[in-house]
Amino acid sequence: MDLVFPTPQEAEAAFYEAFQSANLEAMMAVWDNDADITCIHPNGKRLQGRTMILESWQHIFASGVEMRFEISDAQYIQTALTSIHTVHEYIYMNGDRRRRDPVIATNIYRLTNQGWRMILHHASLTPDTSNAVEINTPSSSTILH
Amino acid sequence: MDLVFPTPQEAEAAFYEAFQSANLEAMMAVWDNDADITCIHPNGKRLQGRTMILESWQHIFASGVEMRFEISDAQYIQTALTSIHTVHEYIYMNGDRRRRDPVIATNIYRLTNQGWRMILHHASLTPDTSNAVEINTPSSSTILH
Repeated sequence: MDLVFPTPQEAEAAFYEAFQSANLEAMMAVWDNDADITCIHPNGKRLQGRTMILESWQHIFASGVEMRFEISDAQYIQTALTSIHTVHEYIYMNGDRRRRDPVIATNIYRLTNQGWRMILHHASLTPDTSNAVEINTPSSSTILH
Repeated sequence: MDLVFPTPQEAEAAFYEAFQSANLEAMMAVWDNDADITCIHPNGKRLQGRTMILESWQHIFASGVEMRFEISDAQYIQTALTSIHTVHEYIYMNGDRRRRDPVIATNIYRLTNQGWRMILHHASLTPDTSNAVEINTPSSSTILH
């Protein structure tokens, strides 16, 4: 699949379209080819390079969960060659219409000879809490800062 | 406080030094002055601009938890004006010497007239699990992708 995205916004739209249609080929067409591309799924480990990243999407798409994305509150920091986006991902699964807390994603795109390509996706959860920041005691199992 | 960091690596070292010494002034000296700076603490909401970000560090530092950081596995994607880092943060709290699962952070620095400054910090948890990616059913309270 040989797609060229003239703007980082078009690459981002293609990313979420591939995500919700579980289209592995379209998903990997959004990602750059370099070894330094990085993907961190919510609560996941850091994945680097096309092989690890492709395998993670295969795993996600194989689950058969039907996902619809509503992307909102996009903020952009754009330079000539790099575009840094943070967005709120509202995800509706298997026809559920309730709006849950969003996943927060940092998406970074790079201008390549083949247009804009994704080089980083870092997504994290926001629990249903009004506290933006919480620190647990050392006895608890998770560390929040 | 008027600090100038000639490289993004020096800005990053200052960030973690300010973090573990709970030094609010030193912490804010690392961050850029623009309204678009963004900070996402683990499981936290997206914070934007100096006021929200400063308040979050005040809150963290006021907890009195003593934190020591070990930063490892740094990966850099550097362009002329932007430097994108992903690192593993091993955090030791209140003298605890056990190495727990790391926090994964994406740290982004921008070259300004006052040297390199942080423009984004996005940190997320890695639970003690061998599964890099997990999808929960719609009935569960959290959404992982």
